[in-house]
Amino acid sequence: MRDLASYLGGAWVSGAGSVAELVNPATEEVLARTSSAGLDLGQAVAYARETGGPALRALTFRERGELLEKMSRAIFAERDALIEIAIANGGNTRSDAKFDLDGATATLMSYATLGKKLGDRRLLVDGEPADLAGSRLQGWHLLSPRHGVAVHIGAFNFPAWGWAEKAACALLAGMPVLTKPATATALLAHRTAEICVNAEILPPGAFSLLCGSAGDLLEHLCWKDVVAFTGGSSTGLSIRKTERLLAQGVRVNVEADSLNSALLLPDAEDASVQAFVRDVARDMTQKTGQKCTAIRRVVVPKSSLDRVRDALCEQLATIKIGNPALDEVRMGPVATASQKRDVLAGLDELRAQTKVAFGSSASPAPIGVAAGKGYFVPIALLEADDALAATAVHEHEVFGPVATLLPYDGSPGQALEIVRAGQGGLVASVYGDDRHALAEVVQGAAAWHGRLVVVDAKVADKSIAPGTVLPDLIHGGPGRAGGGEELGGLRGMALYQQRTAVQGNGPLVAKIVGAT
Amino acid sequence: MRDLASYLGGAWVSGAGSVAELVNPATEEVLARTSSAGLDLGQAVAYARETGGPALRALTFRERGELLEKMSRAIFAERDALIEIAIANGGNTRSDAKFDLDGATATLMSYATLGKKLGDRRLLVDGEPADLAGSRLQGWHLLSPRHGVAVHIGAFNFPAWGWAEKAACALLAGMPVLTKPATATALLAHRTAEICVNAEILPPGAFSLLCGSAGDLLEHLCWKDVVAFTGGSSTGLSIRKTERLLAQGVRVNVEADSLNSALLLPDAEDASVQAFVRDVARDMTQKTGQKCTAIRRVVVPKSSLDRVRDALCEQLATIKIGNPALDEVRMGPVATASQKRDVLAGLDELRAQTKVAFGSSASPAPIGVAAGKGYFVPIALLEADDALAATAVHEHEVFGPVATLLPYDGSPGQALEIVRAGQGGLVASVYGDDRHALAEVVQGAAAWHGRLVVVDAKVADKSIAPGTVLPDLIHGGPGRAGGGEELGGLRGMALYQQRTAVQGNGPLVAKIVGAT
Repeated sequence: MRDLASYLGGAWVSGAGSVAELVNPATEEVLARTSSAGLDLGQAVAYARETGGPALRALTFRERGELLEKMSRAIFAERDALIEIAIANGGNTRSDAKFDLDGATATLMSYATLGKKLGDRRLLVDGEPADLAGSRLQGWHLLSPRHGVAVHIGAFNFPAWGWAEKAACALLAGMPVLTKPATATALLAHRTAEICVNAEILPPGAFSLLCGSAGDLLEHLCWKDVVAFTGGSSTGLSIRKTERLLAQGVRVNVEADSLNSALLLPDAEDASVQAFVRDVARDMTQKTGQKCTAIRRVVVPKSSLDRVRDALCEQLATIKIGNPALDEVRMGPVATASQKRDVLAGLDELRAQTKVAFGSSASPAPIGVAAGKGYFVPIALLEADDALAATAVHEHEVFGPVATLLPYDGSPGQALEIVRAGQGGLVASVYGDDRHALAEVVQGAAAWHGRLVVVDAKVADKSIAPGTVLPDLIHGGPGRAGGGEELGGLRGMALYQQRTAVQGNGPLVAKIVGAT
Repeated sequence: MRDLASYLGGAWVSGAGSVAELVNPATEEVLARTSSAGLDLGQAVAYARETGGPALRALTFRERGELLEKMSRAIFAERDALIEIAIANGGNTRSDAKFDLDGATATLMSYATLGKKLGDRRLLVDGEPADLAGSRLQGWHLLSPRHGVAVHIGAFNFPAWGWAEKAACALLAGMPVLTKPATATALLAHRTAEICVNAEILPPGAFSLLCGSAGDLLEHLCWKDVVAFTGGSSTGLSIRKTERLLAQGVRVNVEADSLNSALLLPDAEDASVQAFVRDVARDMTQKTGQKCTAIRRVVVPKSSLDRVRDALCEQLATIKIGNPALDEVRMGPVATASQKRDVLAGLDELRAQTKVAFGSSASPAPIGVAAGKGYFVPIALLEADDALAATAVHEHEVFGPVATLLPYDGSPGQALEIVRAGQGGLVASVYGDDRHALAEVVQGAAAWHGRLVVVDAKVADKSIAPGTVLPDLIHGGPGRAGGGEELGGLRGMALYQQRTAVQGNGPLVAKIVGAT
């Protein structure tokens, strides 16, 4: 039994009192426990702000990038052992575990490369100067790191990638990080963080880890700080409503789950249809469907419905469910007992307005676990007769291996109406080969999404599935998805920067901001 | 007596019931009244969203820019009559009135020019494409107008510029506007808006005007909408805390007042010192000190204190206070009776920790008004012996012709400590000729401000005073200033746009987003 300590104020510290247990969701074996009770979070925040902040701001982008590269390499060096932790505590298959871990190291490396590109500067210039009235007067825009701490509150489903992608942006921007992973799956977050701490990569105060409850953490924040949260929208709302954050005007970024859709256009070439089926099946079952970017709504022209349904059922039927420690298992359990309850309840809600195309509501008998043990849920492909009438499908997200087929008449207009019924999303994908229809969908769906994936026959075999978040492209969407924005290369640093116009004697100001 | 109607749902409508009166703050004469009681704001919002939004989105940037140019010209054509309204209802001198009106028309024209530059597109591409894994795969970022309504809640001090600068950004971005000016000085906002409406410049639904109370306006907003507020921080906080806006994740931008500082460096050349004194004196008295960007804290090296104090007192002594309808008057009243009460109470608070360098707490006898009439306040230049010990100066803004001299030891470090004690501001200015000290101050103050003005001897005679907001530079600052950002050319449209990553077959996506 491990006790997970927190790394605060430059030291490993353990809370006392109310203890949370971390289990193996396939076997229900208790793996570790943790507590943050009694920890001085005010002091931890102050240490990050006052010791970590100045140290990071004194580094150039190139130097900060080098730290990220070292973090990436340190984590990668222990990949095999980390995969075992992800399997044990995350219910991950080996493939799921790699997805999380490689996402973490790749994102750190991507921002390391950006740091190298930005070079020997400490502040960034944004855009070109504006000529103001008067012959010498010019205005520049400077981007400088905020003088607070970046508080990152992570989701249970990506314990490695989740903290690493947020830390990469904040650290490169020059802000110290205090990261709080979701407790249920914190073993991997803790170990990946511990690897970086033990390697003494970052300057003192630049990185802190809080395991267990967030306690009164938010009460210690001020306007210089940033909160970036990924997780359910109700928690996101409760963070947003925190009186202290509102009164101080703390920047809060929320990345919530959404009812992401995949849309097939009529007359798509075979390669596009196959990519559509492949991506939907993968997204439904990868990480047991517990991805904020997973496809929940499968929008299909009536003319292709039978073909798509048959192909999906065929693929889903091959997926073996069970203890992910076994090689033949393709899908593990959901992460916690309460997740399982929520998935089964949500499934009932959707089934009241749909029929079952694949799966049943009974829990399957998983491979390699004792009878009755583990948080296993069935794969369920549902189908609505009338896409817009099945309101629950557009309003209620079931965070598991569940998606619903939504037929439409083949017109981009009706497809858009269905896609938009999700009221904002992280990602939508469109598969087809009619360039006009693709353009109509992209332009009509853009204001409702943070990312759109276009798949035509020319890239169908090498397309990146919509569920995969890429460091060079922004992540986060409007409306239901929380309204946040992360990643996207340089754009991902904006949350941690203050933009400042600097006006005056053009040549002088250019020198001061480092533009010349 | 005029009744100010609102322009909602494409028609002029008047509320009934609880009526607010608009007065001449110099004479207390009642000029107009207005009410929004009983108006159907849900319908007004829906009309803007559903009629104005699609109409604006159908236009190119060039076409939207042409609308802004027409608005600017229509307002400018009635400049003389509008100046009279500003004098009567705003307590403005002729010069104050021009500052507000010309700010409005210049900002509209600046965004009109930007529209022309952006040309025949409807959506914008943000940055360069990212090459993704796979030979043809690329990701672009698209900026598209949000499909809601931009609700603008304005401050009393800039009834023309205030709505025009917000409308310029939103309309060019492609979002319909519903603007609600502050009631006390709404006569000028109403008339400038009426000029644009009567000229039938904008498509139906693209512009709405709400006079009087905001009523239940915010309760009708959803995640697609935007709220941009300028005014006091307590109102800003109450908007931010609105349950409906939090639950829907409505984008809210707050631009609040702040304790802006002007900093003189030691050994500044005479021209720089003169510019410093000129700008402080102007900022204290222009619009009776009722500017969110006005200098409140005057940070001066001890070695220059006597010289600066003497020069400021000399300039302030020449300013005649009275009815701004008279040509010789250089400063009018504050805008309302409650503003006067607040200024006098705030002055008492500051005086408990400072001494008076110029002025007295007694109301002056203004020129050209009946005895005891009008909301006149004295000019007050205060002085602290110990800059940081005078905590009220850094925490309490007196929104009138009031500033405090804060001596420091001449080191950039101590100057920065004093400047930062304001906990975030819209603008700070630094005057001097030591390039190293200027750079240290700019780099050290940047994260605490939205705009920094650098004045050296080379531009001292043509420098733009720090209180002047420029359309090409961002406006808004962190912390006390509300954390918002407006204007700054293209940057000012971001509040009204959704950024969306679009990934796929590179050449195809480039065509779809209009990059080729």
